[in-house]
Amino acid sequence: MELEDSRITVVGLGLMGGSLALDLLEQGMRLSGVDSDPHTARLARNAGIATVDINTAFTSSDVLVLATPVRETLRLLETFRSHPPELELVIDLGSTKRQIVEAMDALPDGLAAIGGHPLCGKELSGFQQAQIGLFQGSRFVLTSSSHTTEAALATAEHLVDSIGATPLQMDATRHDQLLGAASHLPYLLAVALTGAVESLGKEDAAIWDVVASGFLSSSRLAASDPTMMIDILATNREMVLAALARAQAELDQLSGLLSTGENEALRGHLEPLQQRRASLQNREGVPHGA
Amino acid sequence: MELEDSRITVVGLGLMGGSLALDLLEQGMRLSGVDSDPHTARLARNAGIATVDINTAFTSSDVLVLATPVRETLRLLETFRSHPPELELVIDLGSTKRQIVEAMDALPDGLAAIGGHPLCGKELSGFQQAQIGLFQGSRFVLTSSSHTTEAALATAEHLVDSIGATPLQMDATRHDQLLGAASHLPYLLAVALTGAVESLGKEDAAIWDVVASGFLSSSRLAASDPTMMIDILATNREMVLAALARAQAELDQLSGLLSTGENEALRGHLEPLQQRRASLQNREGVPHGA
Repeated sequence: MELEDSRITVVGLGLMGGSLALDLLEQGMRLSGVDSDPHTARLARNAGIATVDINTAFTSSDVLVLATPVRETLRLLETFRSHPPELELVIDLGSTKRQIVEAMDALPDGLAAIGGHPLCGKELSGFQQAQIGLFQGSRFVLTSSSHTTEAALATAEHLVDSIGATPLQMDATRHDQLLGAASHLPYLLAVALTGAVESLGKEDAAIWDVVASGFLSSSRLAASDPTMMIDILATNREMVLAALARAQAELDQLSGLLSTGENEALRGHLEPLQQRRASLQNREGVPHGA
Repeated sequence: MELEDSRITVVGLGLMGGSLALDLLEQGMRLSGVDSDPHTARLARNAGIATVDINTAFTSSDVLVLATPVRETLRLLETFRSHPPELELVIDLGSTKRQIVEAMDALPDGLAAIGGHPLCGKELSGFQQAQIGLFQGSRFVLTSSSHTTEAALATAEHLVDSIGATPLQMDATRHDQLLGAASHLPYLLAVALTGAVESLGKEDAAIWDVVASGFLSSSRLAASDPTMMIDILATNREMVLAALARAQAELDQLSGLLSTGENEALRGHLEPLQQRRASLQNREGVPHGA
């Protein structure tokens, strides 16, 4: 079945699910949404999204998009083992993929499933933050499960294309290792920075008068929804801890270079990283101020 | 003498000095600039800034603004001890203040001096990045030395007002402690993050395909000029190391909570920091994407 003819239901109308629903609606797809929070569901209806209850979604969809926090997605996939929904494809949008793909592997035969992770977002959450075009120009990782048929992959790629993103196939373990460092680690560093400034702020509240855009951009991710982040961290524990250990080793090295006043060695350490980071400038809209 | 009647010379026409010069020029001040790099000096002249050599600056200025890297500013202040310039006020724009204020304390009698630190900027450097209005709406710390007369403070405050910033008086030690955590620490965390991702990237270059705006905003400061940053770190070593130790303790705590899978304790740790960071959202232009 073509995506344009499919009944698509997005479960979870937060930032990611809500933005996806708005994009698909904009393109005239047959789109419904589910959210257990009545306030969110009302906001979604006001934005033109037809909302249904979860059981209707399971019986009246062709493509089901799970845009819930990772552990809620795992719980839903678990219920599908004994009560499989009648649909062609289930895809998720979670930020960790191994446990999701394992849960997809355990689905009954005939239920096609593929893991998905759009590499975009913002630290603010909820349908209020959802926007048309959120995925435009970003990459969208697709991780195959043993239930990923050729048709399922083609449908997923079509879905990704339709929101202006670029599909990037990657196995779940590799995804989780790379994102542990590229995404989950930045969150933990932002939390640690906020915690360090908070602890000094308890001794001298004037620190809040001197935080400027450098602190604000480095700590931005600490404003992410804790429920979403705990699910991510809990389902990618070893990879996150390995990434954290890499960062701690880097900090130990910086601390050593600083303590001993080895300025030329410090320069030798900083310069290649400065060049690496500067080379990525053109991939972003850099905010001004530091 | 009123600021409007004063001959103001900005030494060092990088991002900060260049932006200050452009602002003062825009307001019709009697403004000259000095830069030892001929290319920078040419860019500045093309932007309408009269450039002079450093010795002319020392003999033909009323207000001298040192916008050089911190250790170059210290070197200039050192030369002023034996060869004081003929002027009313010297002010700097450096990101650390204790060593600067100590050097100002050692100036000959009659040469008024005050430390300054505008709390804005960006990670990109050089006159090419300079812009009118860079300081608009930001705070500008003023740190008194024993050579800060009432007239000197008034002139400095007038200068700060004239570029749309808000003066914030603070002693140099307090400044260095607070900025060690609020500004220098974010830089080190950005470097450590870039280093951690770089080290994983040597094992799997695909990491560069999955870095998104979360990594980019958290690592942004790592693109800062190493020469400027080494001067900052070298002149604020103990305070930076203390701030770094705070962040390392925070990371150790996060690592512990993750390792043991104490998700509710982790939530208890994350939620107040999420609320703190979210409360700062309205103080910045938050970039989209995460």
